Amino acid sequence: MKEQLYEKLDSAYEDMVVIRRHLHMNPELSFKEEKTAQYIHDFYADLGIEVRKGVGGNGVVARVSGGRPGKTVALRADFDALPIQDEKDVAYKSTVPGVMHACGHDGHTATLLQLAKAIHELHEDLAGDYVFIHQHAEEFAPGGAISMIEDGCLDGVDVIFGTHLWSLTPLGTIEYLTGPVMAAADRFDIKIQGAGGHGAAPHQTKDAIVIGAQLVMNLQQLVSRRVDPIDSAVLSIGSFVAQNAFNVIADSAKLGGTVRTFNPDIRHLMEREMKRVVDGTALANDCTIDFEYVRGYPAVVNHKAETEFLKTVAEGILGVESVVESTPQMGGEDFAYYLEKVPGTFFFTGAKPDNPYPHHHPKFDIDENAMLLAAKTLGAAAIDFQNL
Amino acid sequence: MKEQLYEKLDSAYEDMVVIRRHLHMNPELSFKEEKTAQYIHDFYADLGIEVRKGVGGNGVVARVSGGRPGKTVALRADFDALPIQDEKDVAYKSTVPGVMHACGHDGHTATLLQLAKAIHELHEDLAGDYVFIHQHAEEFAPGGAISMIEDGCLDGVDVIFGTHLWSLTPLGTIEYLTGPVMAAADRFDIKIQGAGGHGAAPHQTKDAIVIGAQLVMNLQQLVSRRVDPIDSAVLSIGSFVAQNAFNVIADSAKLGGTVRTFNPDIRHLMEREMKRVVDGTALANDCTIDFEYVRGYPAVVNHKAETEFLKTVAEGILGVESVVESTPQMGGEDFAYYLEKVPGTFFFTGAKPDNPYPHHHPKFDIDENAMLLAAKTLGAAAIDFQNL
Amino acid sequence: MKEQLYEKLDSAYEDMVVIRRHLHMNPELSFKEEKTAQYIHDFYADLGIEVRKGVGGNGVVARVSGGRPGKTVALRADFDALPIQDEKDVAYKSTVPGVMHACGHDGHTATLLQLAKAIHELHEDLAGDYVFIHQHAEEFAPGGAISMIEDGCLDGVDVIFGTHLWSLTPLGTIEYLTGPVMAAADRFDIKIQGAGGHGAAPHQTKDAIVIGAQLVMNLQQLVSRRVDPIDSAVLSIGSFVAQNAFNVIADSAKLGGTVRTFNPDIRHLMEREMKRVVDGTALANDCTIDFEYVRGYPAVVNHKAETEFLKTVAEGILGVESVVESTPQMGGEDFAYYLEKVPGTFFFTGAKPDNPYPHHHPKFDIDENAMLLAAKTLGAAAIDFQNL
Amino acid sequence: MKEQLYEKLDSAYEDMVVIRRHLHMNPELSFKEEKTAQYIHDFYADLGIEVRKGVGGNGVVARVSGGRPGKTVALRADFDALPIQDEKDVAYKSTVPGVMHACGHDGHTATLLQLAKAIHELHEDLAGDYVFIHQHAEEFAPGGAISMIEDGCLDGVDVIFGTHLWSLTPLGTIEYLTGPVMAAADRFDIKIQGAGGHGAAPHQTKDAIVIGAQLVMNLQQLVSRRVDPIDSAVLSIGSFVAQNAFNVIADSAKLGGTVRTFNPDIRHLMEREMKRVVDGTALANDCTIDFEYVRGYPAVVNHKAETEFLKTVAEGILGVESVVESTPQMGGEDFAYYLEKVPGTFFFTGAKPDNPYPHHHPKFDIDENAMLLAAKTLGAAAIDFQNL
Repeated sequence: MKEQLYEKLDSAYEDMVVIRRHLHMNPELSFKEEKTAQYIHDFYADLGIEVRKGVGGNGVVARVSGGRPGKTVALRADFDALPIQDEKDVAYKSTVPGVMHACGHDGHTATLLQLAKAIHELHEDLAGDYVFIHQHAEEFAPGGAISMIEDGCLDGVDVIFGTHLWSLTPLGTIEYLTGPVMAAADRFDIKIQGAGGHGAAPHQTKDAIVIGAQLVMNLQQLVSRRVDPIDSAVLSIGSFVAQNAFNVIADSAKLGGTVRTFNPDIRHLMEREMKRVVDGTALANDCTIDFEYVRGYPAVVNHKAETEFLKTVAEGILGVESVVESTPQMGGEDFAYYLEKVPGTFFFTGAKPDNPYPHHHPKFDIDENAMLLAAKTLGAAAIDFQNL
Repeated sequence: MKEQLYEKLDSAYEDMVVIRRHLHMNPELSFKEEKTAQYIHDFYADLGIEVRKGVGGNGVVARVSGGRPGKTVALRADFDALPIQDEKDVAYKSTVPGVMHACGHDGHTATLLQLAKAIHELHEDLAGDYVFIHQHAEEFAPGGAISMIEDGCLDGVDVIFGTHLWSLTPLGTIEYLTGPVMAAADRFDIKIQGAGGHGAAPHQTKDAIVIGAQLVMNLQQLVSRRVDPIDSAVLSIGSFVAQNAFNVIADSAKLGGTVRTFNPDIRHLMEREMKRVVDGTALANDCTIDFEYVRGYPAVVNHKAETEFLKTVAEGILGVESVVESTPQMGGEDFAYYLEKVPGTFFFTGAKPDNPYPHHHPKFDIDENAMLLAAKTLGAAAIDFQNL
Repeated sequence: MKEQLYEKLDSAYEDMVVIRRHLHMNPELSFKEEKTAQYIHDFYADLGIEVRKGVGGNGVVARVSGGRPGKTVALRADFDALPIQDEKDVAYKSTVPGVMHACGHDGHTATLLQLAKAIHELHEDLAGDYVFIHQHAEEFAPGGAISMIEDGCLDGVDVIFGTHLWSLTPLGTIEYLTGPVMAAADRFDIKIQGAGGHGAAPHQTKDAIVIGAQLVMNLQQLVSRRVDPIDSAVLSIGSFVAQNAFNVIADSAKLGGTVRTFNPDIRHLMEREMKRVVDGTALANDCTIDFEYVRGYPAVVNHKAETEFLKTVAEGILGVESVVESTPQMGGEDFAYYLEKVPGTFFFTGAKPDNPYPHHHPKFDIDENAMLLAAKTLGAAAIDFQNL
Repeated sequence: MKEQLYEKLDSAYEDMVVIRRHLHMNPELSFKEEKTAQYIHDFYADLGIEVRKGVGGNGVVARVSGGRPGKTVALRADFDALPIQDEKDVAYKSTVPGVMHACGHDGHTATLLQLAKAIHELHEDLAGDYVFIHQHAEEFAPGGAISMIEDGCLDGVDVIFGTHLWSLTPLGTIEYLTGPVMAAADRFDIKIQGAGGHGAAPHQTKDAIVIGAQLVMNLQQLVSRRVDPIDSAVLSIGSFVAQNAFNVIADSAKLGGTVRTFNPDIRHLMEREMKRVVDGTALANDCTIDFEYVRGYPAVVNHKAETEFLKTVAEGILGVESVVESTPQMGGEDFAYYLEKVPGTFFFTGAKPDNPYPHHHPKFDIDENAMLLAAKTLGAAAIDFQNL
């Protein structure tokens, strides 16, 4: 059956490119992807495939049932774009000022649509059920995954697979990893309320800049002193703002930053210890410090058996040398929520073009051939999973 | 002779008020005081008093010679206003939007003009010479004093006296102090050039906020560890600005602040040690830190004999209990430059109104009666000095 | 052949215990293990096995050649003891005051001797060559491995295996790990030379305690800001000593500590960045800071193929569930040097007794049955390796 | 009468030297000055002067009443020595190993004894009463002054004068100062109780050295941020001790140091703010920090009228040029307690020898001629005070 699937996908490649470029020219921001959602819905409806839109927001979920009972396999693609001005010089560049598919979600969508069509065409000879999750709003917390799950997109699902086309990994390579593969990405905001005054009279003030400096110094020690060195955590302060005339002592200061972790215990520890340092610094300086810690996506933690299964599947398509273990990345992904509910794995499909740029760059692009490899790997995984 | 002077000044009080209110309604910013300078010039010219305008900029200098030889005494008043919106609800409030005599220099000018007129009227019976220095641009470094001195305003001068009407000191009180009375007021600007990056990848960056925090911590130790505890110094950082998205590590940070000292050696030490800390911090963090230290006015250092003389003179007018020793102030004044050239003293004349506001406040005002006391004290000092 | 080996080892277990207890009662410190070396040498000599002593110091190397050509497999056991007073209440406790086999090297030696005897007895039916490396001085840098290698103990060796009996891992379990398994363990010494003085006159001093505090704060930021969060590093300062009368400012301060890393690049980076922070702090404070960084053992980095091979071998003996992946440990081991020269792996053999204590504890002991499992695993690995 | 006093003192100079050298050869430590107290007592008793010993410990108080009523004037000299080995090469060097009059209290005593004898001889012609306070234990807190006052040494006293012979001020000079002249000298002890562990596992510990470094950094900011820059304070940490093996994380750390202030409000503020920083640091690090602040002598605050009186008296003896205003000193003196009870002043009498050493130095000595000038100044002050 896989050979037939591969043939259908090879034939569908030109259509994938057409779809991807159409989406690329018409990007929509997270939580505003209405036309894209309609486009996806219509694709399925036109083929007579069972489809539901408005799932947990702009989400779209389609379903193909095989000719005989089996497991239910979910495949996921996200479809939102970013607030970035497209600076590429290509025919299919974004037509929407300031909005761009700078992360490849257009490619994810094109891949999944054509894969769904091929599976639909083969469905009588297939066992099990196939759920195609088109997720909105991956780029912007709280993301679309969590509401789509609440709206039932994982009901009855036995396993889920997802991939990210990756512009810095060579075409023909697939990267997998068991366990934590992408970090929990949280943010925090700190507001120090001291007491301002004249620069020449510090004793009448509570100098918010000095208090802020103490805070930065002490927060920087959490990673080195509180976190198991075998584990990973990042605490970065991106903003420190207290702007006054040169001869004034700062009344207040605002700090903001991010915490990245893989292990939920470490994540909890970081939040708790930050609070402790903030409270201690406020006490030491007899001032008020507001601290807000906002949890973003949790870590994407791949399941072991499903990851090893995916690895084997990918090796069958690309060869052993082309399927490599990756290292964890400190970036975030709301695929994490699916993996908290059902087994599965999230992997990276090499899509490096001749002149590569990192994701979220104004000149970002992919080698579109990667879509075909992603479709074959996801498809083979879905079919082979019936035999486990 | 002093009694006759006091009588003339008592009679001139109404005119002082008129002049002061005229100036109050027509304030001009530092280095732009052209109409005010012309007004002062014309006052003297109309009385037939020798006067020179355009001295070192907008400065005006008048001279009255007594009937017999003696010492040359200079008296100084400044006449520039501030970029502050007058928020008082009085008939004589500023008519110039955003500009206001919020420090009392209008009163200084009215005082000196009427005192000069009185001395002129009595000149045949007086010994010595009297130089009336009307200085522009006290509020804004480099100030007017330095260029007026270069243009000869102190030539032949034996002694100089000046006063500041003070809105927080009770009417009827004069404050004097030997030695440093107002601080040297310098500013500094620091630009940290690190290397920015993603908040999740600190190892690829040189975090300008962390470097800035180290700098703040280490600079704060100069006062406690490098300065003789018997001496005084202030180092305050008024600005710390590095504004970025929460998940970005800062590329650069800008800090700015002020240093206040009384002792020139300590002033030099602070500049030198700040440079040392900046260089050490840059070395430790393998980054570039630009450091600019801009000297403002030096400390106002009153001469001992002239201050004790002034104290005695003031006690003769106000009584012993009303002439009090003040403590040094960390604010700056370019009267400092005159005292580097000739002996003299700078004192404070109480001018506290019923509803007092600090200097530079949008509702600042003075009790105008203070002008009369200031005129008498300066006048008596000028006359009595001939007898020393 | 393995079955015959296992039978011989089962029979030899009582002798292993006798040897281990003899060594346990007669411990010798690192680089002073002369009687132990002689004991090992005589064991081989008495059996007629080729043996060389004085290898790179107190090292002993024996060799058994099989009946037909094959690969050369090295097995290593260390045999030095520690400067710890034995506090166990057992018949075989140390008879040497203040010296104790508190890390299990006695067990390693007993294991390897009886394994060598068994292989010797079977040698005619075996392929290849077997090198038994009895290493002195593992506990004390620079260790015995480096000099034994220089003295030829690895000449012609194709692969090396070693194990550590581990008192905190259950008997019957073997722990393996590919890649870094034990850390590089370095030490550093810092001497701050400031300028002392009276506590009331800080401006005449360079306060070594304040300089030391700056140094601690800035060094603690290296891990959080300079090291890739996916990687691991530890920098701990164990000593900070500046002892003076309460009213004296410290002339000097001594700091010391350790750095642990797995990745040689990170190790180099830590040393380089520490030097940078030290130099910058000295510059900022106009003082002298001596910094000495002494490299201990490098990280033990297990080779992938040999580790997977060992895992399979161990699973054959203990079952799949009993062979588990471990996490890296921040402790050090000079087995690292062998793995820099030839492929191989270092694994842990569970030896947890009823009442377990950590290694280097005065009451440390092992479950001696672990020796038999270690012998079987090492022996099976040596024999099976011929078939790869 | 003063002329007669001066003549008697001139004649007594040789005896002063004898007494001083006797005491110099027989020094006794603070609170152990029994023989010295007996010597002083006997001196008075032999002359038939009213004397009481055992005042508040080893203190001795004598009294001479004049021929007619007047004010009661107290003069004070201290008589304890220091735990320092005398390294001078003179005939009168200390005969007691490790104990030395290294601060000049022997000279104070000789001065006061001969002055008392002279006043006694002139008493019939004098008004008022004269109290000679020989105080033990000035060098060691809590000092002798406080218990002697409790035991009545100031009862009925109207004014008190005291002087310190000063080895770094030229002979023939007297230094006076109104207001704070010597600092309050307090000590503090800090014990950080963290949680120790292996240097490779910081996450299992609370690193007492890192906590200590935070504390040092934050305490160093109190002077620069909490204290009025016109005022003075010193906070110096003289000890930081946490000594462990290089690969251990410190369980605890001990810090100790001193605080010096002139103003009681600043003194109180420093103690309160230190406590705040300690508590905040403990909270931030979830550890225990014990903080003990032990008040030493308060600041010596000279009374204005009595200081100006003393200045005039001294000018009459030495000339105007030789009586100079001093600057405050950060050292401590328990003369402070007398001045909290009665008006008075404490001044310095120049006693610089050819080869001067600072006080408390093993080679410290004085120019003995200073005793005569001190006696004349104290005596003239006592007599002239009757005429105020």
